[in-house]
Amino acid sequence: MTIAYDGSDYHGWQVQPNGITVQARIEDAFCKFSGATVSLQGSGRTDAGVHAWGQVASLAYNGSLPVERIQAALNSLLPEDISVRRVEDTAPGFHARKSARAKTYLYIIDNGRVANPFLRRYAWHIRQPLNLSAMIRAAEFLPGCQDFISFKAADGETRTSRRTIIQVRWRQRGSSLCFFIKGDGFLKNMVRIIVGTLVDCGRGRNSPSVMAEIIAGRDRAAAGITAPARGLILRSVDY
Amino acid sequence: MTIAYDGSDYHGWQVQPNGITVQARIEDAFCKFSGATVSLQGSGRTDAGVHAWGQVASLAYNGSLPVERIQAALNSLLPEDISVRRVEDTAPGFHARKSARAKTYLYIIDNGRVANPFLRRYAWHIRQPLNLSAMIRAAEFLPGCQDFISFKAADGETRTSRRTIIQVRWRQRGSSLCFFIKGDGFLKNMVRIIVGTLVDCGRGRNSPSVMAEIIAGRDRAAAGITAPARGLILRSVDY
Repeated sequence: MTIAYDGSDYHGWQVQPNGITVQARIEDAFCKFSGATVSLQGSGRTDAGVHAWGQVASLAYNGSLPVERIQAALNSLLPEDISVRRVEDTAPGFHARKSARAKTYLYIIDNGRVANPFLRRYAWHIRQPLNLSAMIRAAEFLPGCQDFISFKAADGETRTSRRTIIQVRWRQRGSSLCFFIKGDGFLKNMVRIIVGTLVDCGRGRNSPSVMAEIIAGRDRAAAGITAPARGLILRSVDY
Repeated sequence: MTIAYDGSDYHGWQVQPNGITVQARIEDAFCKFSGATVSLQGSGRTDAGVHAWGQVASLAYNGSLPVERIQAALNSLLPEDISVRRVEDTAPGFHARKSARAKTYLYIIDNGRVANPFLRRYAWHIRQPLNLSAMIRAAEFLPGCQDFISFKAADGETRTSRRTIIQVRWRQRGSSLCFFIKGDGFLKNMVRIIVGTLVDCGRGRNSPSVMAEIIAGRDRAAAGITAPARGLILRSVDY
């Protein structure tokens, strides 16, 4: 299933002991109409406050309900901040996380002199005018298969910190600056730390070429701050 | 001052005994930093749940603070769902309501098969696909100086129900249908009842030409339902 959610009021995607999560809400709704206890496998976690337009989750269900009925039942039971956009049958062996080939995230910066109240849940408000062309040049150092350990949260665990960034793009829409990044996988907080680092270039604190040094330095301390969760949206997952 | 607000959590613009209003929030903030008790005059009321991008309000203030300082102080004290976009000195005699020459409203319909969670506070979700060209033709009967009593809430009081609609426009943006309407003034609930009536044409319940009959009939019962407040945004006020 493909799921959109406003993550503002959730403790992230993945089920956890304390706090309501998006996954738990959907599993509860599924149980309510079908009687079946299912375990959803998301394409990956999203942190507390992070949103999704195209999160994908898979589950094993042997019941008789057709996918259209499942979608309608879920949407009638879920709160307004979660929508199931699509439910599909899959080939055997499909796994939302393991079968994923690429993910695209969007990060929104509200760069208006005054914060836009309609974006307060969906963007990082930065009052200081940012130099977009500096941020575009800085982002050009990201594509390729590289070790991105400089952009990994200290507590993030993985075997390897090499990932392939497939594409990056900045777009201006009114006072908003939108950063799209597509990769074969992301380390913990990677997109948010990349954005924090690009913003340092946009503020003029760093020149764009510093980006190459930060990547080569393999040192989290050289990168920028972790941008706020509220501006991050998991846009789509490719299979 | 020009004010943007997300009206979801307010009992409308205008101060009232029960419930928090946008006007009261701004007046309280003004008093907090300046010590002055002021009374804001809005360009008009907005109902509970209605939003604004360009509400305008005037006030008389004889203190010494410059407009930039007033704006910064207000924005630092106001909650995130209200932003003061601009503060200006005016010519003597300026009055946000009486001096207004025209207002533009925007109404957003989320016409996706599944509701978009990011629009749940800012749009009316209608699952059934609407016929946009029928709604465009129906809206063409609105411009001009006419008696719009058919689109007035029963409890709305005014001397006359004649108003001039200056311009109407429908625009499609993805799954959203946006209706812009500009006029020299609006009766109580007028935009929301017009949208409810246009949607009847979009659903195929009425042919577009019925719009002319509804206007001529001067009968609220012939018009459609009052569209939900959440989809309505006061876009701008012209002086």
